[in-house]
Amino acid sequence: MSDSISFHMSADDFRTFGHAMVDWIADYHEHIESRPVMAQVKPGDIRAMLPATPPQTGEPFVEIMADVDRIIMPGVTHWQSPNFFAYFPANASGPAILGELLSAGLGVQGMLWVTSPACTELEIHMMDWLVDLLDLPAKFKSTAAGGGVIQDSASSATLCALLAARERASDFTINRSGGTGRITAYATSQTHSSVEKAMMVAGLGREQLRLVETDDTFAMRPAALAARIAQDRSAGFIPAFVCASVGTTSSNAIDPVRAIGEICQREHIWLHVDAAMSGTAALCPEFRWIHDGLELADSYCFNPHKWMFTNFDCDAFFVADRKALIQTLSILPEFLRNEATKSGAVIDYRDWQIPLGRRFRALKLWFVIRHYGITGLQYHVREHVRLAQEFAAWVAASDAFDVAVPAPLNLVCFRHRAGDEVNQQILDQLNRSGDLYLTHTKLDGKLTLRLVVGQTQTRAEHVAAAWTHIQAAATAVTAQRALKVSDP
Amino acid sequence: MSDSISFHMSADDFRTFGHAMVDWIADYHEHIESRPVMAQVKPGDIRAMLPATPPQTGEPFVEIMADVDRIIMPGVTHWQSPNFFAYFPANASGPAILGELLSAGLGVQGMLWVTSPACTELEIHMMDWLVDLLDLPAKFKSTAAGGGVIQDSASSATLCALLAARERASDFTINRSGGTGRITAYATSQTHSSVEKAMMVAGLGREQLRLVETDDTFAMRPAALAARIAQDRSAGFIPAFVCASVGTTSSNAIDPVRAIGEICQREHIWLHVDAAMSGTAALCPEFRWIHDGLELADSYCFNPHKWMFTNFDCDAFFVADRKALIQTLSILPEFLRNEATKSGAVIDYRDWQIPLGRRFRALKLWFVIRHYGITGLQYHVREHVRLAQEFAAWVAASDAFDVAVPAPLNLVCFRHRAGDEVNQQILDQLNRSGDLYLTHTKLDGKLTLRLVVGQTQTRAEHVAAAWTHIQAAATAVTAQRALKVSDP
Repeated sequence: MSDSISFHMSADDFRTFGHAMVDWIADYHEHIESRPVMAQVKPGDIRAMLPATPPQTGEPFVEIMADVDRIIMPGVTHWQSPNFFAYFPANASGPAILGELLSAGLGVQGMLWVTSPACTELEIHMMDWLVDLLDLPAKFKSTAAGGGVIQDSASSATLCALLAARERASDFTINRSGGTGRITAYATSQTHSSVEKAMMVAGLGREQLRLVETDDTFAMRPAALAARIAQDRSAGFIPAFVCASVGTTSSNAIDPVRAIGEICQREHIWLHVDAAMSGTAALCPEFRWIHDGLELADSYCFNPHKWMFTNFDCDAFFVADRKALIQTLSILPEFLRNEATKSGAVIDYRDWQIPLGRRFRALKLWFVIRHYGITGLQYHVREHVRLAQEFAAWVAASDAFDVAVPAPLNLVCFRHRAGDEVNQQILDQLNRSGDLYLTHTKLDGKLTLRLVVGQTQTRAEHVAAAWTHIQAAATAVTAQRALKVSDP
Repeated sequence: MSDSISFHMSADDFRTFGHAMVDWIADYHEHIESRPVMAQVKPGDIRAMLPATPPQTGEPFVEIMADVDRIIMPGVTHWQSPNFFAYFPANASGPAILGELLSAGLGVQGMLWVTSPACTELEIHMMDWLVDLLDLPAKFKSTAAGGGVIQDSASSATLCALLAARERASDFTINRSGGTGRITAYATSQTHSSVEKAMMVAGLGREQLRLVETDDTFAMRPAALAARIAQDRSAGFIPAFVCASVGTTSSNAIDPVRAIGEICQREHIWLHVDAAMSGTAALCPEFRWIHDGLELADSYCFNPHKWMFTNFDCDAFFVADRKALIQTLSILPEFLRNEATKSGAVIDYRDWQIPLGRRFRALKLWFVIRHYGITGLQYHVREHVRLAQEFAAWVAASDAFDVAVPAPLNLVCFRHRAGDEVNQQILDQLNRSGDLYLTHTKLDGKLTLRLVVGQTQTRAEHVAAAWTHIQAAATAVTAQRALKVSDP
């Protein structure tokens, strides 16, 4: 009798509101340029519009959607805007969004092969496809001794790599009995902060992360790495892990993977290569030099959710020896035992990651690769690089700005010649304007502006407009300062 | 000129295929009962249908969708089926799916307040709402010294809690210099395996996880905990972390949080309470006894993605002292520095989790809470508990089956009286049939069947049918065995 009561959304309502939501998203993307890129709100503004307590009875979905426009949108920074040039991109695309929608609609768990075989098998297959697409070393394929897995982020991939390195170096005794604080890892001051965080999480301590000297392109100096390893060995430390970056977050510096890899091979050190954004460039043969020496790496990751039109989260993490990773992360409680796992014929991805549960994220990758094809993916990545290079040329030719460091791909680091204060003012003025969004870094101690071309809809006109805005802001800032100086 | 070329999906195509995808999902849920719950494929079946290499040119979206039906669906185990009674549920609902869709459509990052203020502020607010909804201790609110954050899973929440406990106990020296292997943690043999995994990840070692004795309901014995702590202290260990379960995965055992909490307070040990599935029951005042003593806990988590109609991933993780968590997980590289963070007026959720990037997951929670209201959520949770209790009564009244352990909420553990082999055969036969999906555990060394009522669309008729199928399978299995015995 009580079965007739239901507060669930009916199938018809789901259709109606689902269509409306799809249309809302299409409209949003079509008109996204009319919005200020960076949210123009103060801390607390959004919360102040939300009711203090949850509603006692359900509310109509149309009201909820109206509140998305009224309450949420003013507080959104538009990462999908073609005028978003900040951080690294986290681009998305129609097929990716529909893949995410399907994943939510199916609502399956992929922690074990048996909990939804298609979820695991499509993921294995997409990871192997990515090896082909980027022409990565064949050892990263599931058909060899390696394999790939989708992680939420490069941070998590780095942590998993570090843990496997830690266990290999300790003969799996830290997993059993705890850490010693004698294991050391190597990166540079330019390496992503997730390595330092992983050292903390893994119980190895951030002091045991050695920051190796970089050259004038901010890339790791292999000789300095070798020297530091030797020094640590003689002091009784256990060098276990090197993280090489293919495209640092700060300035897109590309560490010399081959030279680093040769040292790691000789020293039996786990080499992890983090190509979070730049890896995608390897879709195009002409950019594959960034991966030179990758066959010497033990693990590798790049993020289709940064530059490959696949919405967050989708980091592709590869290992050369899947057994080391699985032995590091595997535990098997009774409630997860099953025939397929026992047979050894399947991959259970829960043993390749920190969490147990996992979504069906391979769907969006499958949709993206099939929708674009190799040709479509290559075209847009090439175009992004071309536009960034064009921008770098404009900067180089200008009287007021300099390119701070050569731009290998789609990230240009540049600065006004008048110093940190002026650069900060230019940055603040541009971001406040809402016309575009840039972020900064420091290179050689100097405040440096960054412009990344990687958003799905960023075209030549947006990059040209950005350059116009940047020049105008510089003129305004310097004029204002001249006025202040002349003002007693 | 090259600007006219684009391989992106047009807005119109996104509308067309988006509507089609919404309809596909609506149809899927309407007809889900016609599908075998558990995928009926062998390892490799799905991969064998996928092309070996990625396509050179893009493919029409209709072909991709056709392949979802042809290739993917045979390999899907239907977690959203009302006949899914296995593991713990990972239920979903219309408003949650639409929230996930919107999140993908916006494609924003919530790692810092400034990267999308609404993403952070809605999440803070929803976490505070959950404190009200479940009547959790006020100290878990952001307006007190605590606060909540969405994690991908309870595994990650447990890891974050353990790390904060490790750092508090070591005066933040392990983050700095690495582990000692002297820190101990406490759980039971029934505690989720994620605690053991977290001990490994955190570099503390699984040997330092003490499995405290349980009582005959499989709940932790506080006296045994106190004794083990004392023993460890006198042996020079540093007891730092206790995980109490409110509803174990195996049998829904509920550890006595108050008695455990009193010990932890006295001993200055971090108490984490894992209520991954069962926490949702506290929506209803009559089930709030499960949280008795929760005000003594340092951290707490439950998963709206299990039983609260919010699709995976959405674990709600609360801490009483947010400073300890932030101090444990915070690092601040130059590229993330910004005025809002410097001002101290905002929360940057990257310091509350392992990864850096994060999706806008609060949207789906907001949609669910507003769509159902308190009344709707309470109704369905009550109904699930009522149906499970009814099932337990049928089992208790049967000649062939016994309830293995009292069922406090919506998970019933039961077994056929004829022993492990018969139970295994019943389980296999039921799951092979596709009529329903059950999983097992071991209690007191005996194979035990588990039936969880928690799927969104599970109603009285499904639970009644499950009982009919279970009885029929038992009859068939025992008849077959009798035949074999009489057969020379």
